[in-house]
Amino acid sequence: MSKERPVRVALDAMGGDHGPEAVVEGAARLSIEERPVQVFLVGDPERIGTELAKHRYDPSWIQVVPAAGSVAMDAKPAAALDDNPDCSVLVAARLVADGEADALVSAGSTGATILASSRTFQRLPGIRRCALASVYPTEQRHGDRGDPFALMLDVGATLNATAEDLVGFAVMGSAYARIISDNQDPKVALLSNGTEPNKGTEAIVHAHELLSRMDTLHFAGNVEGLDIPRGTVDVIVTEGFLGNVVLKMLEGVSEVVVDLARDAYARKFLYRMGLTMLSQGLRQLRTMTDWKQYGGAPLLGFDKVVIKAHGRSNARAVRNAVKVAAKAVDRDLAGQIRAGMKR
Amino acid sequence: MSKERPVRVALDAMGGDHGPEAVVEGAARLSIEERPVQVFLVGDPERIGTELAKHRYDPSWIQVVPAAGSVAMDAKPAAALDDNPDCSVLVAARLVADGEADALVSAGSTGATILASSRTFQRLPGIRRCALASVYPTEQRHGDRGDPFALMLDVGATLNATAEDLVGFAVMGSAYARIISDNQDPKVALLSNGTEPNKGTEAIVHAHELLSRMDTLHFAGNVEGLDIPRGTVDVIVTEGFLGNVVLKMLEGVSEVVVDLARDAYARKFLYRMGLTMLSQGLRQLRTMTDWKQYGGAPLLGFDKVVIKAHGRSNARAVRNAVKVAAKAVDRDLAGQIRAGMKR
Repeated sequence: MSKERPVRVALDAMGGDHGPEAVVEGAARLSIEERPVQVFLVGDPERIGTELAKHRYDPSWIQVVPAAGSVAMDAKPAAALDDNPDCSVLVAARLVADGEADALVSAGSTGATILASSRTFQRLPGIRRCALASVYPTEQRHGDRGDPFALMLDVGATLNATAEDLVGFAVMGSAYARIISDNQDPKVALLSNGTEPNKGTEAIVHAHELLSRMDTLHFAGNVEGLDIPRGTVDVIVTEGFLGNVVLKMLEGVSEVVVDLARDAYARKFLYRMGLTMLSQGLRQLRTMTDWKQYGGAPLLGFDKVVIKAHGRSNARAVRNAVKVAAKAVDRDLAGQIRAGMKR
Repeated sequence: MSKERPVRVALDAMGGDHGPEAVVEGAARLSIEERPVQVFLVGDPERIGTELAKHRYDPSWIQVVPAAGSVAMDAKPAAALDDNPDCSVLVAARLVADGEADALVSAGSTGATILASSRTFQRLPGIRRCALASVYPTEQRHGDRGDPFALMLDVGATLNATAEDLVGFAVMGSAYARIISDNQDPKVALLSNGTEPNKGTEAIVHAHELLSRMDTLHFAGNVEGLDIPRGTVDVIVTEGFLGNVVLKMLEGVSEVVVDLARDAYARKFLYRMGLTMLSQGLRQLRTMTDWKQYGGAPLLGFDKVVIKAHGRSNARAVRNAVKVAAKAVDRDLAGQIRAGMKR
């Protein structure tokens, strides 16, 4: 990707629980930062205009592209896209496919974002199935920046994965961790029910064999459930069904921990003596538990960069997702994955 | 099961990380309690004798049954059982199959316990696959006693499960929760990647259909990963691969939480002001995290009661596992499962 031209991101302005409000504010903020990104705000021009008027922004970095409606968070993706070929996520995806933008970012329905991407982009050579990746908090730290997050994929794009699919996920996860988390040599592992190479489903056992023979990534073998919160490796590879359950469970665990902490805090008089420390602790905990707010989940496997921001994204999270998309374009994520797939 | 005769439990004395030490002590303790259980201590008579000599016990409730060796925790179960048909877990299982004892309890290798049971016992009508069930701590409380634990199965006996297998697991989990957790109407759910009936793998979608039509249990539909730590339902049904990952992950999460809490406690001076409260909190947390110590995992699906105590079991945990086995026999777990399978 040329360094001269700024990265251009097609941003689905209508997606997410907070609608255009959070998305437009995120774009506005980004436009007046030191290193802005060219953003296409795709959606209802009137609503986007109303939101834009509320914020300070640099119009040279923002362009509004009209679209007719959007996919509701609870709609069936296939039917919604069929019924409305000019909805915001499809118009945004076409901007990318046509080369007018470099990356797609949406905080809308995950299913619709995946389907719009499948219908509009090409899959990378050797990749049969795309994967949604997500960072999650771990005890151990990762990469040059010492991030307290590891990456897991697939977390819900494909229910079942073959051995070849898992190999593709491993290559894509490794490339993403290298590029986005500044981790030069990310350790990648398969999630299984034991660390021995013969443990797991047929697909996992076979993927283990295939990955052991590859030299384009650092394969660390199998990890178990225990290793997920510990963060023993940088990238955990699994099929989408299991990844989805695990990720939601992590969300649930952190919600429960916050609940318990809040409860204890409210009830126990003695705790109040440690007020300052505790509130700091709770803040830290909340930061951890809100981790999904702080970036976006890459949808990997296409020739274009796609970032799915969390539905609950606020302006800051949208801004972060766009920055991540720009970084992935700048550092040529697709090219890295292509190179990684060469055996 | 007749109330006149005390329940007789065949206890694999050689299994577990603490070997006969913890197992024999557990049996000794139980023999002098108010409501003892008849225990066959199966293993090396000399080592059992040495351990027995260290404790106060009532010999009328303990009988030593010789066996030749045991299955090492890291041995391949099939080969180990083939090589040694008179190892402690097989001798103990035969005592049960022959009607000399009513239930099998082992803290030894899980694989060996499952395989010994498969080779020695009959499966209940309609049950093709056995399931290992485990309790785990939840935010919400369960049953008449308000237990902070829910039940999950299968957690590792069968990798993949068909729809019919999942139905069997649901019936068995429901029966176990009713009998052991004093929960008159346990809510049973399938673990999936969404709550809608059409979410999940083919097996899960089909199992959902089948379970919806059954009136021998309280089917609550699908739950997601989020619901695991919350404890939205009393019994969560899943295939063994996923259940194993989830259970180990819960162990990992609690270990990490204890680590973090211990760290914070050691480092922060201000926390010391709340010393009493905090140490109480940590104790609670540790109790929660050691939950696997406090009972045993039932291996369900056979015509006999089988309880797998955790490998790390101490004397108290062994004693608890034997008590649970006796309760399952007393309340006719197998009969309850049989009744539940009738559609």
